[in-house]
Amino acid sequence: MQDEMISLASDNHAGAHPEIVSAVAAAAAGTAGAYGTDPWTAVAAERFKKVFGKEASAFLVMTGTAANILSIDAVTRPFEAVLISDCAHLHMDECGAPERFTGSKFITVPSEQGKLTVEGLRPWVEREPDYHRVQPKVVSITQTTEYGTVYSVDEIKTICEYAHDNGLLVHMDGSRISNAAASLGLDFPAFTKDAGVDFLSFGGTKNGMMFGEAVVFFTPEFDEAFQYSRMQGMQLVSKMRFVGAQFEAFLKDGLWRRNALHANAMARKIADALKGAPGVTITQPVDANAVFAVLPADMIETLQQRFHFHVWNNQTNEVRLMASFASTENEIQAFAEAVKAIA
Amino acid sequence: MQDEMISLASDNHAGAHPEIVSAVAAAAAGTAGAYGTDPWTAVAAERFKKVFGKEASAFLVMTGTAANILSIDAVTRPFEAVLISDCAHLHMDECGAPERFTGSKFITVPSEQGKLTVEGLRPWVEREPDYHRVQPKVVSITQTTEYGTVYSVDEIKTICEYAHDNGLLVHMDGSRISNAAASLGLDFPAFTKDAGVDFLSFGGTKNGMMFGEAVVFFTPEFDEAFQYSRMQGMQLVSKMRFVGAQFEAFLKDGLWRRNALHANAMARKIADALKGAPGVTITQPVDANAVFAVLPADMIETLQQRFHFHVWNNQTNEVRLMASFASTENEIQAFAEAVKAIA
Amino acid sequence: MQDEMISLASDNHAGAHPEIVSAVAAAAAGTAGAYGTDPWTAVAAERFKKVFGKEASAFLVMTGTAANILSIDAVTRPFEAVLISDCAHLHMDECGAPERFTGSKFITVPSEQGKLTVEGLRPWVEREPDYHRVQPKVVSITQTTEYGTVYSVDEIKTICEYAHDNGLLVHMDGSRISNAAASLGLDFPAFTKDAGVDFLSFGGTKNGMMFGEAVVFFTPEFDEAFQYSRMQGMQLVSKMRFVGAQFEAFLKDGLWRRNALHANAMARKIADALKGAPGVTITQPVDANAVFAVLPADMIETLQQRFHFHVWNNQTNEVRLMASFASTENEIQAFAEAVKAIA
Amino acid sequence: MQDEMISLASDNHAGAHPEIVSAVAAAAAGTAGAYGTDPWTAVAAERFKKVFGKEASAFLVMTGTAANILSIDAVTRPFEAVLISDCAHLHMDECGAPERFTGSKFITVPSEQGKLTVEGLRPWVEREPDYHRVQPKVVSITQTTEYGTVYSVDEIKTICEYAHDNGLLVHMDGSRISNAAASLGLDFPAFTKDAGVDFLSFGGTKNGMMFGEAVVFFTPEFDEAFQYSRMQGMQLVSKMRFVGAQFEAFLKDGLWRRNALHANAMARKIADALKGAPGVTITQPVDANAVFAVLPADMIETLQQRFHFHVWNNQTNEVRLMASFASTENEIQAFAEAVKAIA
Repeated sequence: MQDEMISLASDNHAGAHPEIVSAVAAAAAGTAGAYGTDPWTAVAAERFKKVFGKEASAFLVMTGTAANILSIDAVTRPFEAVLISDCAHLHMDECGAPERFTGSKFITVPSEQGKLTVEGLRPWVEREPDYHRVQPKVVSITQTTEYGTVYSVDEIKTICEYAHDNGLLVHMDGSRISNAAASLGLDFPAFTKDAGVDFLSFGGTKNGMMFGEAVVFFTPEFDEAFQYSRMQGMQLVSKMRFVGAQFEAFLKDGLWRRNALHANAMARKIADALKGAPGVTITQPVDANAVFAVLPADMIETLQQRFHFHVWNNQTNEVRLMASFASTENEIQAFAEAVKAIA
Repeated sequence: MQDEMISLASDNHAGAHPEIVSAVAAAAAGTAGAYGTDPWTAVAAERFKKVFGKEASAFLVMTGTAANILSIDAVTRPFEAVLISDCAHLHMDECGAPERFTGSKFITVPSEQGKLTVEGLRPWVEREPDYHRVQPKVVSITQTTEYGTVYSVDEIKTICEYAHDNGLLVHMDGSRISNAAASLGLDFPAFTKDAGVDFLSFGGTKNGMMFGEAVVFFTPEFDEAFQYSRMQGMQLVSKMRFVGAQFEAFLKDGLWRRNALHANAMARKIADALKGAPGVTITQPVDANAVFAVLPADMIETLQQRFHFHVWNNQTNEVRLMASFASTENEIQAFAEAVKAIA
Repeated sequence: MQDEMISLASDNHAGAHPEIVSAVAAAAAGTAGAYGTDPWTAVAAERFKKVFGKEASAFLVMTGTAANILSIDAVTRPFEAVLISDCAHLHMDECGAPERFTGSKFITVPSEQGKLTVEGLRPWVEREPDYHRVQPKVVSITQTTEYGTVYSVDEIKTICEYAHDNGLLVHMDGSRISNAAASLGLDFPAFTKDAGVDFLSFGGTKNGMMFGEAVVFFTPEFDEAFQYSRMQGMQLVSKMRFVGAQFEAFLKDGLWRRNALHANAMARKIADALKGAPGVTITQPVDANAVFAVLPADMIETLQQRFHFHVWNNQTNEVRLMASFASTENEIQAFAEAVKAIA
Repeated sequence: MQDEMISLASDNHAGAHPEIVSAVAAAAAGTAGAYGTDPWTAVAAERFKKVFGKEASAFLVMTGTAANILSIDAVTRPFEAVLISDCAHLHMDECGAPERFTGSKFITVPSEQGKLTVEGLRPWVEREPDYHRVQPKVVSITQTTEYGTVYSVDEIKTICEYAHDNGLLVHMDGSRISNAAASLGLDFPAFTKDAGVDFLSFGGTKNGMMFGEAVVFFTPEFDEAFQYSRMQGMQLVSKMRFVGAQFEAFLKDGLWRRNALHANAMARKIADALKGAPGVTITQPVDANAVFAVLPADMIETLQQRFHFHVWNNQTNEVRLMASFASTENEIQAFAEAVKAIA
């Protein structure tokens, strides 16, 4: 049932990595406890402790939207607000589910290259408490950002220090956290826990898994509340073993890194293909697996006959081109040739 | 990582059927549209139309709780109430998610052998409208019931007629709908759509799938609202292909029926093993794949050393024993011998 | 604009006591802080501290439904449940607002003469914690009950001890708390705070105020959360002075008690008028200002030509007759004569 | 209990007009139906029909926040969004209650002098429908705006036409609608119903009432849903007569206009007092009863020793000075002299 077109539309247009498929198949036999009481889930939870330390707890859910919303739900009450960037997935692409499920207000602040800044947070954080106003409790940042850029460790530290100094927690939407780690050349803790992040949506789906995301809390304080939030959020799947098995395969010997390095490298080649083409401007730093660029309208039209990708901004003709673990050298080569042919 | 114990605790303690595993593996290659725009999901949707007719729309979600809540959400407003049995999964096992997500009131009415009756509905349905009171909009029945019993077609028709006469819709929680179909010896429409049911949670997970449930609406009226509810309910998974592929394998040539017939037959044998044992009373008709029985306390203790099962009622020592597609003759034989040894 | 009929339908069919009207009129002049920062509200808050002790905080809202829901909201999270009687106002007459606003599950337990019992609570309280099930956090009792009966101090103590032993809080819906105090011959703390109640909806409207209820917490723990809940519940009125002024008039020199004693005495006379009438059965103890009785159908019909009252149960012809602070001896006399004339 | 200071902080720091007090006092006697079934509420509802036409229905609530949220709730589902200005009361001052109660997303668009523009709406309205994104359903404008400015009839018509062309409804937050009518020299329908507004929060409290706001729908389509929303929103007060009586007094012979003309005139005088003072800049058109101005820091400090008012923006030293129906010539004269003394 494969598509004739080449997809550069999203890393979730890819299927699943063969090692993931094998892990799922191997988990299919035998009886085991349901709702996350099975040994595969236990192994995955232990694996996360190896990555993030003994204090860290990882809980598995099915979608990135669920990881974001349910983790935030566990740490907030409805009168507490969440500060997010104006391009955040939580704001643009989750259909109002954050507000609906948590009851909290999600307040947008201006972003630069997809990144929040302390200056943007200030007007909402440095106010007098007042019963007419929601009280900021969480700052959420996305890594890699919705524009494919990557926060440096220092940028994250600055935000976390400011947040903590003002009594706020920091959440990271890491739906593409592997791409960020590969880009930074760091292990996960260096730009999450060690930089001050309090809790994390750790993505698997976009980097080669079938489905599965993990919520990671770096302290045990919210573990119990989260487990009720997860059940109320309809995300406590009965045969959790099939998520646990994937995460173990993903994490145990660096599949996550191999996949992410590949995707990032392919994006780099997409950018190289576009660089210098007439009328093309690359609009964002290509830090990870996404390329944002303004293309001439007729170039977009021609390319879209063979390649799937999204026009991000209809007014400016900015497009997003995204590579995945499954993007092949041949596919990117085909793209490069198509660009050249147009030029 | 298999368990030494034999599990008769739940059909969701089983893994996945090999045909399901193969279908998932086959779906892993190649790029495809995300969020249900892939060909596997399209094939599954078409398959459901073959089963339930062209007017029927099926939408895939990950859990039975989600199927129940999101379908009800699509047809109700928060001042409209849902009438359910006092043993309904919606009431007992969904952690308040129904109330939290929909905002609606779920009102319990007395059940007999797990079944709702018109008499139980009457006091809530036949009231004057009043702005101090929620307005009943949906009756939800579970098939097979939480006590393993199966509504007859006539019982369903009676409830549906009463509901429709009073302006209510009927939902069926069919998390074990295959076991019911196998028990009744009928195809799905005969005791759902054709009996007057308006919408349906169609279960896959408990009968051999990894995960995946379908919401089926028999008229197109609620399709659009449901799709927003699903997204807001965090159930629009990106790589939906892996659910679509499972459902096609499940439905295309009777895997659902083979699995259900087997599970039901194994439950029958569990019941046979218990029948006549001293101090044992089978408390519910064994219509499908569950056996409810009161056992002597020491018998429970002894059996639980080798078999997983739930004590349903601590006061009365009523237990639930459940077979699945994966239960083996050997396992049930072992159980029968254990019972005999105790007696 | 007065009604020709005599109303025995509800204590909220009465208007406002002249001392309340004077207090409101006196509060109309001059500028003052809004949203409860005015001196009238401060005086009322101080008055509540005189009644319930320095640790107690009183917050004003407009309706009894709001007092119940917002106080419960301040102490619960959506996965925590509230145990209530099957005839509770929270269950029957608040249009699902409790579930909608708090997101929590309100679980009904059987009542006797309107009262909860420990036996009724047990099955929900004495369960193992389980992420599939809401966790009971609050027991709510109504004083006087919806059947006009009054819990004794010992009955309240028994419930509170059981609740506290199991980690639950006790809420009292005191929309008719003055009638209960008058009936028991006690001051408010004796059957609330001193008996173990943790927080309270303190009613004013049904006993002679225009509108206004107070939420009273006996410890400061929930004060801040409540104030946000109140604002989110749309109950932080700007000119709160008009509620504060009423409460001061209500509490400062026993208006509440005079009104309640009168209403209770009038109910007693209604009961006396009915006693012995052919075909009449008084169905509940007449502890306060309500009389429940089964009347012959034609008697109901005849009486309703001159008197407003509710048929509580259409099947049994049980009616509710309710007196208020404003019920006059003449009105009750007229009722007694009407009953006699029918007999 | 009057304050020694002169308050220019808010029109809700004023008390109640004597005609309002008289109406409330007159409504205190006699029994009447509860929950809005009394004759005073009926008279008020009829009065609103005289103002807005027979198709219009008015429903009474207690607070402006409730009027806004509950009316919007009646016309939206949680996946439908509300477009509001970035300074809207719904955004800044309602403590997240809009999101929490409705579940909907409230999206801010840039404002100029407190006013929404079609250009600001465009990016949210002119998108393809997509299940990942909330669907705009309502545009809400505030009249007078939060900056004391007044939309012209043409400005309102332009927004309404654009909204209707795109399938959206228009709500007006008219908490200060009387001040707008007085400013425009128009009756209410001219800039609401006749200009295309679909439903309205009609304010009473800020212009001389004790409390009470009305929700007005210009077509009967949403009446029933609203009445359930009002009950679920805890705003169906039992002794509604006390709100109905106020509205009749407010509307029957122009009290609303007298009060508003006075407040607007007093604001004009505040502006005159400031004009030309050294270091003072009036920042917004003084269309109604509010003056926004940047003042030197020491001037603010000196003035706040005798006058209550809010510093709107701590960074810029912009303050808000607001007159009410109860502001006296003497008070404003005192303010003018204080300004002069500083200069």
